[in-house]
Amino acid sequence: MAAIEASSHAPTPLLKDELDIVIPTIRNLDFLEMWRPFFEPYHLIIVQDGDPSKIIKVPDGFDYELYNRNDINRILGPKASCISFKDSACRCFGYMVSKKKYIFTIDDDCFVAKDPSGRSINALEQHIKNLLCPSTPHFFNTLYDPFREGADFVRGYPFSLREGAKTAVSHGLWLNIPDYDAPTQLVKPLERNTRYVDAVLTIPKGTLFPMCGMNLAFDRELIGPAMYFGLMGDGQPIGRYDDMWAGWCIKVICDHLGLGVKTGLPYIWHSKASNPFVNLKKEYKGIFWQEEIIPFFQSAVLPKDCTSVQNCYLELSKQVKEKLAKVDPYFDKLADAMVTWIEAWDELNSGGASDKLPNGKA
Amino acid sequence: MAAIEASSHAPTPLLKDELDIVIPTIRNLDFLEMWRPFFEPYHLIIVQDGDPSKIIKVPDGFDYELYNRNDINRILGPKASCISFKDSACRCFGYMVSKKKYIFTIDDDCFVAKDPSGRSINALEQHIKNLLCPSTPHFFNTLYDPFREGADFVRGYPFSLREGAKTAVSHGLWLNIPDYDAPTQLVKPLERNTRYVDAVLTIPKGTLFPMCGMNLAFDRELIGPAMYFGLMGDGQPIGRYDDMWAGWCIKVICDHLGLGVKTGLPYIWHSKASNPFVNLKKEYKGIFWQEEIIPFFQSAVLPKDCTSVQNCYLELSKQVKEKLAKVDPYFDKLADAMVTWIEAWDELNSGGASDKLPNGKA
Repeated sequence: MAAIEASSHAPTPLLKDELDIVIPTIRNLDFLEMWRPFFEPYHLIIVQDGDPSKIIKVPDGFDYELYNRNDINRILGPKASCISFKDSACRCFGYMVSKKKYIFTIDDDCFVAKDPSGRSINALEQHIKNLLCPSTPHFFNTLYDPFREGADFVRGYPFSLREGAKTAVSHGLWLNIPDYDAPTQLVKPLERNTRYVDAVLTIPKGTLFPMCGMNLAFDRELIGPAMYFGLMGDGQPIGRYDDMWAGWCIKVICDHLGLGVKTGLPYIWHSKASNPFVNLKKEYKGIFWQEEIIPFFQSAVLPKDCTSVQNCYLELSKQVKEKLAKVDPYFDKLADAMVTWIEAWDELNSGGASDKLPNGKA
Repeated sequence: MAAIEASSHAPTPLLKDELDIVIPTIRNLDFLEMWRPFFEPYHLIIVQDGDPSKIIKVPDGFDYELYNRNDINRILGPKASCISFKDSACRCFGYMVSKKKYIFTIDDDCFVAKDPSGRSINALEQHIKNLLCPSTPHFFNTLYDPFREGADFVRGYPFSLREGAKTAVSHGLWLNIPDYDAPTQLVKPLERNTRYVDAVLTIPKGTLFPMCGMNLAFDRELIGPAMYFGLMGDGQPIGRYDDMWAGWCIKVICDHLGLGVKTGLPYIWHSKASNPFVNLKKEYKGIFWQEEIIPFFQSAVLPKDCTSVQNCYLELSKQVKEKLAKVDPYFDKLADAMVTWIEAWDELNSGGASDKLPNGKA
């Protein structure tokens, strides 16, 4: 505890050589100007969605590699089928080609938010803090993150659990446009999130949550192979469930492996709501499918001998095939894609974390 | 959803005739002066601990009944053995003699806190809001309480779960002196809680939490008979685990019965830390016992045919006897006291909620 405490009061390490920022996009990345003071020290992996002949402009001074659909097809060959097209789910290709320990992914309509004192929030710094500090999935602490300065474990928190668990995922939130589904967007078109909740908390073991991919960081070494954003968009019957799918999978696997998932700070400023009519079309199958998917994940049990993320994920893909394919043939395809994803991941990452991808563009 | 929404935007009902405030004390209740604007409309049940010959002064204008040890012994007869003496656990006698639907209990060293805008916080009003609004124990909402103004269920939250569950318990927090155990108090004597976290959240099903009795409200009709604060203080080997014990029991029973438990707002101002050396003496057995008690509660399963709080509680007392008596003979006594508590509760409450207690003093 003392050692953890000391490190939590020390300046946050930058992890410049250990973190990649993954950005899926179809347009020029002007939004990076606002993030320049925070993102410029880092390497960006840009995953260009849609028409590969379009030129995406990246502001000067950023260190980046960019992959369009042609690159993805060339690098993965037939296995490129597991990477979605015309959907921000394509971002997970960036997770796969990164060789860093940590990933931060952000949408290109997310700007720097301000805290209640008016200070610009360095979202990335807060994610790093979250990832480097333990989680507390096995018992709830009423003062939220006990490792934060000015807080601790409260009376009645078992001492044997105060070491916590390694943190695999840090889920950040959004001021301004909240992440609502299409029906809620339609009913509450003017609702804005103005409440700054100054907390980071661990989502308890056994509890699922809706993971949004807009402002998300994770430890690639701990959970990377499970961060697959599924088959969405072009040619698929569903969209806008990419991050949700990944969130259900990673939570079940983190619970099984004793890893922690945090949510709360940092906030970003989500600038514009997507079109609710378009969203409804993308979502409507998901809206009823999720009524069966969630009980499936709530009751999913992984065998004890699944001790690696890959094993867990392949086991989960089997269970998806067995139990969800009857909901819709889509899940049969998705289960296969989950296997393809792991094969592609292992192919690109087999040489160890220090390998450089030969086909990467800098 | 629409109806719930409308009601959450309406002014908070006062529930003047439906709520009692229970205060355990050994001293004059000067602290009520600060709470006068918020508490004066309500009936107080004061449970005087320690020397019954001492006169407790209550500021003018408050409507109250006061019970000292002699009253408790007279009203409960031999069953008074289940009510602790020389420990604030005695407060649960007040829950038993109340005939109201809701209880708010507060310690006499808790003052009115201010929110970040400098406004005095009406803690009771927030508890009422929390209790009247549904909980969401079956799935985590990343924007916290979805029924609060300006918030809702986020994308990916199953629609079938958006009705929520009835709220049985509202656990409020503390600014200034945090509720730490003796070892943490000793290590961090100067730590103060200055962080106002503007959130109310449901503790997910299957997750235990350390429930503090300092600033707590509950629905007596939904969970009252499980709010037993155990055997603490005089003649007992342990203290300062009264609220923890109740918290573990109520959480297991709420989970079983599909009821919700919330934590977060409202804050009170906790004025002074209790003596850590005295606390250590009271707590030290609890500190190692809790390492066995918590796994016991984490794995406790209640049979399906336990559909009333009383049945659940009696079943839990059996399991305590079976599984915890081997930790220490104290738990054998505690299991018996749990049964006595239910008998006494039923005796005092058998005539229905509208009965007046004949022996009550006004």
